[in-house]
Amino acid sequence: MTVAVAVIPFKPKNPKTRLSCVLDEQEREAFAESMLSDVVAAVRDADCQPVILGTELFDSELVQVTIQEKGLSDALNEYLACCVVGNVLIIMADIPLADQVSIQRVLATPKDMAIVPGRGGGTNVIYLKDPTKFRVDYYGGSYLKHMKIAQECGLSCEVIDSFRLHTDIDEKEDLVELLLHGTGKSRAFLAERGFAITTDKGRVGVERKR
Amino acid sequence: MTVAVAVIPFKPKNPKTRLSCVLDEQEREAFAESMLSDVVAAVRDADCQPVILGTELFDSELVQVTIQEKGLSDALNEYLACCVVGNVLIIMADIPLADQVSIQRVLATPKDMAIVPGRGGGTNVIYLKDPTKFRVDYYGGSYLKHMKIAQECGLSCEVIDSFRLHTDIDEKEDLVELLLHGTGKSRAFLAERGFAITTDKGRVGVERKR
Repeated sequence: MTVAVAVIPFKPKNPKTRLSCVLDEQEREAFAESMLSDVVAAVRDADCQPVILGTELFDSELVQVTIQEKGLSDALNEYLACCVVGNVLIIMADIPLADQVSIQRVLATPKDMAIVPGRGGGTNVIYLKDPTKFRVDYYGGSYLKHMKIAQECGLSCEVIDSFRLHTDIDEKEDLVELLLHGTGKSRAFLAERGFAITTDKGRVGVERKR
Repeated sequence: MTVAVAVIPFKPKNPKTRLSCVLDEQEREAFAESMLSDVVAAVRDADCQPVILGTELFDSELVQVTIQEKGLSDALNEYLACCVVGNVLIIMADIPLADQVSIQRVLATPKDMAIVPGRGGGTNVIYLKDPTKFRVDYYGGSYLKHMKIAQECGLSCEVIDSFRLHTDIDEKEDLVELLLHGTGKSRAFLAERGFAITTDKGRVGVERKR
């Protein structure tokens, strides 16, 4: 039984530019697809039906809805208002540590909605029991904006405390978390391409052997 | 009723040197004490009895055990072997987002022990039902070391998925998470000294107005 539709925004072309220091464009595209694949597997394990909200079509068996790159929030709000019936999970494509248990904790909220903050003030997951009552506003500290919108809309909201869903992979340092805690295709992608963790006295680092 | 002794390693003098770019030595000492205070409040809310394992005595009503700065792991292992009866929670002093609920999730593990990884491969929390059966080994990627030690010791181990306990405050960028998600003394300390979040297209940043 499908518990919720899982809407996953995705940019197939030239994604993850902050990883350009360690991955070229073609690699970043393959890496982004491998992270998407891990997220899709996790939402399916949690009985959600994935729908990709992509900036262009890409080669995949997944259900794809194509949107303008500049207008993620508008496109999502339009989609939520007209095209979804029932519970909706909006989940980012760059959180490959997502797993069945962490997503089920989101879906189990007794509140009207649940939210998982990303690193540095973003929003990685929004779960809505009635998607017509909320509007999203991504970019630029979206976590605080979404908490405020929930209040304005009169929706009770639970913040889910999960580092697996909190850890979005944007920068080289973030790859450490994926190498340490990942189990899926995106971790394998990095390992196959020579990425490994390095250890000194402080935090663990990452290096690439070519 | 005390559920566990909460051992909190703490360095009162010249702590958090990676924050030197935004806080002078005296401020870092006051900030470290405010973070400790938040952690102490959280463990007490979860019915644990705090004991500070400090590199020197500092002005506080808390129970303090003084150890050599260089030998945290040895000191802790000696302490675990001889001085504790019952459950032990080892929790770092620099995770001020810790709260009652997240700590209770750790204490509720059905396994022999639980662990919470820190950012970049460290270990922020270890919970031991029988502290004599485990030995700690901090620094240099301690999370993987502790998972291996658990296996070697034949102890079942749960990894607790919490960003509140995962987020250790070491660097300037980490202050963003404390400003966004903190509720205690350490957040107030930053706000009083002019720290505020800045917003642009990507992750939220932090700046200090003097």
